[in-house]
Amino acid sequence: MKYKDYKILAKVTPDASYTVSMEQDIFDTDNPLIAGKTGSEKVLFVIDRGIGEKAIEKIKTYAAGFSMDAAFLVLKGGEDVKLGWDNVYRVVDKAEDHGLDRKSLMVLVGGGSVLDMAGFTASILHRGIRHIRVPTTLLSQTDAGIGTKNGINFRGQKNLLGVFNTPEAVFIDPSFLHTLDQRQISSGLAEIIKVALIQNSELFRWVERHYQDFLAQEFENNEMVTRIIWQGVLEHIKQINTDPYETEQGRPLDFGHQWGHRLEIITGHAMNHGEAVAAGMAIDCIISHKRNLLSSTDLESILSLLKAVKLPLVYESAAAAELWPGLEDFRRHLGGELAITLLKGIGKKIDVNTLLIEELEYALAYVKEQVQ
Amino acid sequence: MKYKDYKILAKVTPDASYTVSMEQDIFDTDNPLIAGKTGSEKVLFVIDRGIGEKAIEKIKTYAAGFSMDAAFLVLKGGEDVKLGWDNVYRVVDKAEDHGLDRKSLMVLVGGGSVLDMAGFTASILHRGIRHIRVPTTLLSQTDAGIGTKNGINFRGQKNLLGVFNTPEAVFIDPSFLHTLDQRQISSGLAEIIKVALIQNSELFRWVERHYQDFLAQEFENNEMVTRIIWQGVLEHIKQINTDPYETEQGRPLDFGHQWGHRLEIITGHAMNHGEAVAAGMAIDCIISHKRNLLSSTDLESILSLLKAVKLPLVYESAAAAELWPGLEDFRRHLGGELAITLLKGIGKKIDVNTLLIEELEYALAYVKEQVQ
Repeated sequence: MKYKDYKILAKVTPDASYTVSMEQDIFDTDNPLIAGKTGSEKVLFVIDRGIGEKAIEKIKTYAAGFSMDAAFLVLKGGEDVKLGWDNVYRVVDKAEDHGLDRKSLMVLVGGGSVLDMAGFTASILHRGIRHIRVPTTLLSQTDAGIGTKNGINFRGQKNLLGVFNTPEAVFIDPSFLHTLDQRQISSGLAEIIKVALIQNSELFRWVERHYQDFLAQEFENNEMVTRIIWQGVLEHIKQINTDPYETEQGRPLDFGHQWGHRLEIITGHAMNHGEAVAAGMAIDCIISHKRNLLSSTDLESILSLLKAVKLPLVYESAAAAELWPGLEDFRRHLGGELAITLLKGIGKKIDVNTLLIEELEYALAYVKEQVQ
Repeated sequence: MKYKDYKILAKVTPDASYTVSMEQDIFDTDNPLIAGKTGSEKVLFVIDRGIGEKAIEKIKTYAAGFSMDAAFLVLKGGEDVKLGWDNVYRVVDKAEDHGLDRKSLMVLVGGGSVLDMAGFTASILHRGIRHIRVPTTLLSQTDAGIGTKNGINFRGQKNLLGVFNTPEAVFIDPSFLHTLDQRQISSGLAEIIKVALIQNSELFRWVERHYQDFLAQEFENNEMVTRIIWQGVLEHIKQINTDPYETEQGRPLDFGHQWGHRLEIITGHAMNHGEAVAAGMAIDCIISHKRNLLSSTDLESILSLLKAVKLPLVYESAAAAELWPGLEDFRRHLGGELAITLLKGIGKKIDVNTLLIEELEYALAYVKEQVQ
């Protein structure tokens, strides 16, 4: 070709690594951790109303105590906060009115939905504002809030718009768990059980033995609760370190999610994320069993545990025909050939490239008969 | 602290490097370059109408010739395409209707504004779809279209929303330059002169000697035209390789842009980007001279060249008070302390941290008297 020597490599190899740590009482007035991240820069706290008035006041007191140049935006959490652009605009408006720039800091405090939406906003405002995440629900502390992904729902699709981007740090403060209701705790356990199922059988046994402490909200000075949460974090980060931007074909962390995402949508989020994922995992475990990958004993243990942690595995109107499109949505989100995670044992995942609608029908019938 | 051992590093160090190359007749039916990037995946071409019907038809013929599963979206280019979300939605709709996924390819063909908006959309759809850029204007081929930045205008601010993201490749095909009018060519020369001024005096001399060939559109088999364009590319990529995501304090590639961005806004884009940048550079060269950094001879050479390439350096209603807020917008976009690039000679930049409105007033008066 005429211009054969006119070629140059633009070398772009950023280090976007970040730390995830468990911290006690992150907003106590004598805890300098977050204050130390702000320096003299402006701060915007985006806070999930779900943490309660007392915790919100504590954050404001914290910011005042360290003389931060801070603004606060409190939003109703839950999946609706991710619906379209409305809340993105609210964050942009608040950030702009407060005069944030790229050296400023956004501190995102809340459940996975608030972190997803506000993390996305932080990622696109001024081409990316520094932010740290303080996940406050069991689910976000062990899954949605600690990874590389953010996004909003659009055109009826979960996370259709979003980016891979990393925070400066993630601080997991178990003291927030007291603000949760039982459904939120069960939902968080679903994602812990998920990482246990795909890669850590010991964690599965821990949850089997100690889930009652979670349901009873016995978090204080409870070593096994702490270890279970932290092991959930480690299993999650292990996957992120393997494939942070999901360029590989499989998405093991999305075990059960192809049905779960669909269940959330078709129930209009009557099933929350963890519940829907649990129902999706139940289906995939049954399919794994039907394919002679997973033993009856293991299947029984899994379904029993999911039930024991009060996860509803059946949604009455969920027919196979309604769930089936979830498979194509899932394939398209990653692209290329379909790759679905099944189990060949507790703690042992296996990727497959095809599923049959008959298998889904079988699993739905099975779960309705055996589980309810 | 209670949880002191509960800390892990999420290691995220992606390689986002990409090649920029000059290519002849990229959409000739026997040029397999782009076809080879698509494989069997779906493709969406987002095309700037400004390249003309003939070139658009050629792209469609190209896609058909290689039996691509392609869709086409043709948009009116220019700054308006970046205004708010309308065109982002159009790209999303087209991509979704065609069933694109993350393994699919978007081929973005056009001027800097179309590349900015469509590149942003590609970056946030499904958390990032592969894309390649084919900049078609002199400005986008040497500046806006080859770097790491994209974005849209929002709340009256240029590029308020966007991300740093890299394409898979950038292909520069000079055959598109025949579609440009004189203002577009002059505008592109402004950005080439910019990189010359901040870091390559020899390139400045080349432009002094050969700008007539650009204005006369004598691009074919014109070795110096090719060398000037390519040197513009190299100077730009040199900066990107130094600081791809603009984490350092200075933004040398934005020489003159603090006034330029403002001029674009206050003239309602009656001044295009290159023209506004040229006017901004003229101001900063005069300030550099007033500070005894830049000699009279050099200042004269610069202003003469900008005039010779038909760049209007004055906009009648641009008063200092109107331009001055551009400084704070500029500081905020990067954050931290203000860092403005001035010149201590042709090809030699120097960063300063303060400017006075009196200096801006002086420069505006100077340019009005001396240049017009």
